[in-house]
Amino acid sequence: MSFPEHLLSQTTRSMGVSFIREMIKATKGVEGMISLAGGLPSPDSFPKEQLAALFKEVLEKEGADVLQYGQSEGDDVLKEQILRFEKEPKVLKEELLITDGATNGIYFFTRAVIDPGDVIVCEGPSFNGTLIATEACGAELAAVAMDEEGLLADRVRETIVARRKMGRTVKFIYTIPEFQNPSGRTMSLARRRELIRVARELKVLILEDQPYRDLRFLGTRIDSIWNIARAEFGDEHTVTICKSFSKVLGPGLRLGFAAGPADLIAAMAKWAQKVIVSPEGVVQRVVARFLERDMLEPHLERITAMYRHKREVMISALRETMPPYVRWTEPEGGLFIWLTCPETFDTDVIFHEAAKAGVAYIPGSKFYPSGTGRKNEIRLNFSYATPVDLGEGVARLARILTRG
Amino acid sequence: MSFPEHLLSQTTRSMGVSFIREMIKATKGVEGMISLAGGLPSPDSFPKEQLAALFKEVLEKEGADVLQYGQSEGDDVLKEQILRFEKEPKVLKEELLITDGATNGIYFFTRAVIDPGDVIVCEGPSFNGTLIATEACGAELAAVAMDEEGLLADRVRETIVARRKMGRTVKFIYTIPEFQNPSGRTMSLARRRELIRVARELKVLILEDQPYRDLRFLGTRIDSIWNIARAEFGDEHTVTICKSFSKVLGPGLRLGFAAGPADLIAAMAKWAQKVIVSPEGVVQRVVARFLERDMLEPHLERITAMYRHKREVMISALRETMPPYVRWTEPEGGLFIWLTCPETFDTDVIFHEAAKAGVAYIPGSKFYPSGTGRKNEIRLNFSYATPVDLGEGVARLARILTRG
Repeated sequence: MSFPEHLLSQTTRSMGVSFIREMIKATKGVEGMISLAGGLPSPDSFPKEQLAALFKEVLEKEGADVLQYGQSEGDDVLKEQILRFEKEPKVLKEELLITDGATNGIYFFTRAVIDPGDVIVCEGPSFNGTLIATEACGAELAAVAMDEEGLLADRVRETIVARRKMGRTVKFIYTIPEFQNPSGRTMSLARRRELIRVARELKVLILEDQPYRDLRFLGTRIDSIWNIARAEFGDEHTVTICKSFSKVLGPGLRLGFAAGPADLIAAMAKWAQKVIVSPEGVVQRVVARFLERDMLEPHLERITAMYRHKREVMISALRETMPPYVRWTEPEGGLFIWLTCPETFDTDVIFHEAAKAGVAYIPGSKFYPSGTGRKNEIRLNFSYATPVDLGEGVARLARILTRG
Repeated sequence: MSFPEHLLSQTTRSMGVSFIREMIKATKGVEGMISLAGGLPSPDSFPKEQLAALFKEVLEKEGADVLQYGQSEGDDVLKEQILRFEKEPKVLKEELLITDGATNGIYFFTRAVIDPGDVIVCEGPSFNGTLIATEACGAELAAVAMDEEGLLADRVRETIVARRKMGRTVKFIYTIPEFQNPSGRTMSLARRRELIRVARELKVLILEDQPYRDLRFLGTRIDSIWNIARAEFGDEHTVTICKSFSKVLGPGLRLGFAAGPADLIAAMAKWAQKVIVSPEGVVQRVVARFLERDMLEPHLERITAMYRHKREVMISALRETMPPYVRWTEPEGGLFIWLTCPETFDTDVIFHEAAKAGVAYIPGSKFYPSGTGRKNEIRLNFSYATPVDLGEGVARLARILTRG
């Protein structure tokens, strides 16, 4: 007997499944398949031995503390070390929330501010995980285009004004300003300032998602939007930033944090209390000790060198094999490269052909709010496959796109 | 400048704070204070050394796997070991969801089935954490009284019928059938069957919360409602059970699970994907190895012996010191004893007097849905304080209640 669907909530019944997860499942474990689809860090990037020693030590020395119930807003010991690593001594502990990864922070932020029907302005394309999580909270997403400098601030303004004229409430702008998922683009400093001005003028919040910030291989680090708002505008309530240890220590740890205005962080912590009670205690302390002993900087040097090489391998392969009408971004960090084919290409359809030829990717359409997607784009991941497979995978895809 | 409140969502603005957390904070670290207020396991109950060795081993041997992204529904290795420990070989993996503790499972269950305004029938009194988490999802709670055999099934039926006559949708019955928080009561086998009959007749679900099930010190284990429904009624979709490793291994681990109909578990996993992505990977595998090596049974024997003794100390002290008009439950397991004073007592007011005298408890009113609480009850915890403090704390409280 199957479960009676009318017992499920309306939201649950209409909720999107993650096509990305489905696609990754469909191409996983297939003999000879090279997957450039997921967003997985390389297993070689995990500091297994260092973590093994720290887990043992923390359990032995601090077990009674870390195995007990902890604060919903996160462990003070970890907060202190995060502020030290981020070189943000002026940030108060009350402005910081430890989360079960960045997505968890984005969920609590969305719950804290969004009423059903409220609008979020995001980049088009944007991270699918955030799109489905915020839609599950009843948000409507309005995607705004980017250029090489990132989200077009003028278009953001126009979009907000237009929605307001339609009687809608726009609550916040969601952006991944660095090595954006999926486009690989980085927002310029000028554009960041412009975006803050628009948000302040129209009195909306900015949620800055920064999961890849510490994975920069080239170019110069740019101040976070969060930091610019505080330092240059003296504004401590417009921007909330979410970061994650997933891409630097391992996503299995489910650890990240959010920094924002104390009242909003307190509201997010009220949600955390109800949804997870608190973040995991042992992992929090282990990461605190990892930071305290200055183990993160040298670790980051090692893994960014590895990813820099993988990125070069993929870009070389693209240059060597792709037909002239295919363009791509060349990101300064992160995990992804974004391909644009001529408008006549349908990468949803080509996906199946590519899978048959032994290479998997995510079609670009999956990164737009429902119904607004473009069909001629492709996201490629360069962090997970081996360098040899990166070259071969790109070559297989190039053959398909040349025939296509 | 304070954060503009109108930017917060309606739910967030009206959401209850946890009075219990506030009270625990207010009485924490006060010189000489004996706290019988919280629901903390004893730090002596944590298997620190065993976990330390397992964390190290899992990271060293399985680090690449457990530090990577995992399934939203939880790790298959852990699921297998849970089914083996629970002696439920016929349960499918698809009927099992690993959660960040039991509260997390309750939240996903509530999100999966509750639309704003829907009704949940619960015990009065019931676990405050569930009340505020389900209210945050827009649920209305209808508390039904218990007798010595637990929730009154006839009253449950009357309540559901009455709400339906008022045009309301009743989605599920929430019960903690064993060593209930806060009352310490256990539902009899006959009452469990009766409750299943009512739920089936009126086509509502049952959410069975079993965080203390493995902490039985006395008496005979009773089949879970979930098991009775499957085994005796051949019904695999009415009951979902939530369990937790918090009270047996340590709440800092944030690990529990839910078992229910596959379609409902899949709906809960869709929420998990959006809210936490997946449970923490390292902890899941460590607990799987703990179970696989048959370390849980002897551990439970050790900690139930410890808690049995603490319970006896508290009951002896109650018998020796309490005035004759105070009654209490004598639970066969769990963490709590429930005191009932004459109707004229107001334990919200007495709380402050008791705190001054150096003993903290949670007033009974905090365990009822808003506005429906009784004022003459008290929850006492016997798991956390030392045996000496348990005796002294009860004696201090007895003096207050004798004068009161």
